[in-house]
Parts: sequence; structure tokens; C-alpha cells
Amino acid sequence: MNAPRILEVRRQVLKANDLAARALREEFQRAGVYVVSLVSSPGTGKTAFLEQTLRKLRANYRVAALVGDLATDNDAKRLARAEVPIRQITTGTVCHLEAEMIRTALGEWSLNELDFLFIENVGNLVCPSSYDLGEDLRLVLLSVTEGEDKPLKYPTIFHTADVAILTKMDLALAVDFDRDQAHRNFQSVRPGLQVLEVSSKVGTGMDAWIEFLENRRRQSKTAGS
Amino acid sequence: MNAPRILEVRRQVLKANDLAARALREEFQRAGVYVVSLVSSPGTGKTAFLEQTLRKLRANYRVAALVGDLATDNDAKRLARAEVPIRQITTGTVCHLEAEMIRTALGEWSLNELDFLFIENVGNLVCPSSYDLGEDLRLVLLSVTEGEDKPLKYPTIFHTADVAILTKMDLALAVDFDRDQAHRNFQSVRPGLQVLEVSSKVGTGMDAWIEFLENRRRQSKTAGS
Repeated sequence: MNAPRILEVRRQVLKANDLAARALREEFQRAGVYVVSLVSSPGTGKTAFLEQTLRKLRANYRVAALVGDLATDNDAKRLARAEVPIRQITTGTVCHLEAEMIRTALGEWSLNELDFLFIENVGNLVCPSSYDLGEDLRLVLLSVTEGEDKPLKYPTIFHTADVAILTKMDLALAVDFDRDQAHRNFQSVRPGLQVLEVSSKVGTGMDAWIEFLENRRRQSKTAGS
Repeated sequence: MNAPRILEVRRQVLKANDLAARALREEFQRAGVYVVSLVSSPGTGKTAFLEQTLRKLRANYRVAALVGDLATDNDAKRLARAEVPIRQITTGTVCHLEAEMIRTALGEWSLNELDFLFIENVGNLVCPSSYDLGEDLRLVLLSVTEGEDKPLKYPTIFHTADVAILTKMDLALAVDFDRDQAHRNFQSVRPGLQVLEVSSKVGTGMDAWIEFLENRRRQSKTAGS
């Protein structure tokens, strides 16, 4: 089964990614752009959440987004409705984004003309966890329709996230969502993890999220200067 | 980035898996057990669907299930309520089941004392697609809460499935599910794909699914004898 050899190759790939991610992070910091990545299962509502976020930010900030998928540029088309620069990354059969893909996709974009850059990962609760993309903030999204147990069953992705976003809160009643149990599960996997509750559809929690994001960016500026 | 070497190693792993899967398939056929695997995103409702399936079948058939997850044996505990033999496979950080894991988990189970064996894969719409598990029937499950576009965005998993199961149909109205669009998307990715609509919660479509399954098993027996 060649398991040791696979592990060795995998380690090399991860190491190469870490170097590329470090270079990206330094570039982002020099340019003064705050970078946020989003990971979740397919269908959690990453794109809807990101579209509303872009719409809310664009009045006061210069924002742009990269969006990853195996196939189609549907998400880029949806996000383009927010009327900010968007680029699609199609990964083929690869179940995650890598730092090198980000660099390539950025192309000639002038990072110092941006305040926020968002990176929407491929829909997957497993693969993206090991790949640093040079981001300042990594969000893991979970919808109330997926069940309260997901942090326990996919712990690694929750370990690598800075903040969890509970989406589709408007459906909480319809699916008998057990909010207390969900929060206990988040805390048991990652004690102290901050969890924000939103509904992109009806707008619940979106203003609090934007305020949170603005504060984080401000803190990173203070720390970096 | 060593991409060619990774591809080569990956090809070897896949080839080893194909050999192991072929051996399993022959063993299943000799024993006369009909084997069904389930793949989907996290939170699509694989375990709820499987629990109801096991409850309905156990009156007339000898059934058992293997269930894969990165961590926890929560699903095995839930399925144990159906009072049939269940074994959990925990994969650590591996985002799919492999044929060798199935063989190991089966251990000393007497396959010829079983009519149906179910294998619930790790929740992932990407990784499991390349790994044959020796099953007779591969189901891909998609819930109405995940959106109609998922077949277009994760085409490979739909290519490798024999049947699609649309779950959580009881929530279709609450999430404005566009049924016609979903079916167009299924057919554009895999023309002729059979799609069954169910709600494990309220029971819709479950009898039709059991009848479908019984017919498939009967046909495989006729073909094999």
C-alpha cells in the first residue's frame, strides 16, 4: 500500500505549501489587505454569506474575492452580483485550495488597492484543514440543517479555524436545531472558539458579523504597525 | 511541488484499492450478500436514512452496516438503535473509506448469514469518488437544503453513483427548493441517473426506496445464478 512513501510525499507538499503561504502572508501584510478564508461542507451557504458580506462592506471598503470549486464558475457569477472584483479558481479533482493557486489567481491584482480579500474554499470539511493560504482569519461555516454533532465528527477543521459561523439560523426551528448542544460541541472540540450566528437570507446577525470583522482588521493594523 | 511523483503514488494506491475491491466483490457475491454504499456531504442525512432503512428491512432480511467517520462512534451508536449488527470505522484524517478498511472491519462476520450489508462513507462529496469498495450499488445522497446546483459543482461523485437520493424533502418548501432545476442538473451531469426523493423524518418515499432495493437485490441474484 506504500503508505510511508505517501506520507513522505504528502509532507513535502505540505511543506511547499507552508513556504508559499508564508510568502503570501508577508505580501498581504505589506499591502495592508486583511484576508479572510471560508471553509465548510457543500451547501452550508458560504456563497450566500459571502455575497451579503461583500454587499455590506463595499460602501466603505475596497473588497475582492477568490472562489474555489471543482467545476463551474457558478459561484463567481453569483458573487459578481455584489459588483466587486471576483475570480474563480477551478481545481478539477483537487478537494482544497493551495497557496500557489491563490498566488496564480491573484495575477496582476494590486493588493495595496484592497482593504479586504475573501477566499472561499472548495466545499469540504476535511481536505482544506491542512493548507495554510496566508489568510489572517479562517472561518468555518456550519448550517443548522447539518446537525449539532459536526464539530465532534470533523474536529480537525474546527481546530484550524479562528471563528465558527452558524448559518441558516432562519431554519433552526424547522430542523429542531439544538443550539445548546451545538455550542457544547463547539467548545468541547475547541475551547474558547468564538461562534457567530447568522442568516444570510433574512439578515440576522450580519451587522454583528461586519462589526466583528472591522474590529479584527483594525486590531491587525495596530499590531502590524 | 513534486506533482508527477504524487500522481504516480496516487495511481499505485488506487490500483491497490481496485485489487482489494475486486476481491471483496467476489467474496460478497459468493456469500450472496447485496452491498450498498452511501456517500454525501456531512449533514445530508445519511445516518437517519440508513437507520430507517435498517428498521424497515430487518423484519424480512438479515442486515448489517459499517459506518465511516474521521472521529467518534456517534453514528454507530445511532444506528445501533435499529438493533442490527453495526461496526464503526474511524479514519483519523483520511477523507474516504478504502476497500482494505472494509475487509478489516468485517473481521470474523459471516457474510453468508447476511442478505444486505450497508457501508456509510465519511461525509465528503469529493474524496470517496475514486475508491471502489466492492459494493453492488452506490448511492449519492443530496439534501434539499444543500441547493440544486451541487451535481454541477461536484460532478465526479455523481458520475460514480448508481442512484441519487434526494433527502429532507419535508424541508423543500422551507428552503424554496427548485425540484425541476435539481432534476435538470442531475440529468445534465449524468443522463439517465435514477433519483429517489425521500424524507427519513416523516417517511415520504421510504417504502418506494425499500421496494427499489429489494428489486435490485433480486435482479442481482438472477444475474449471478
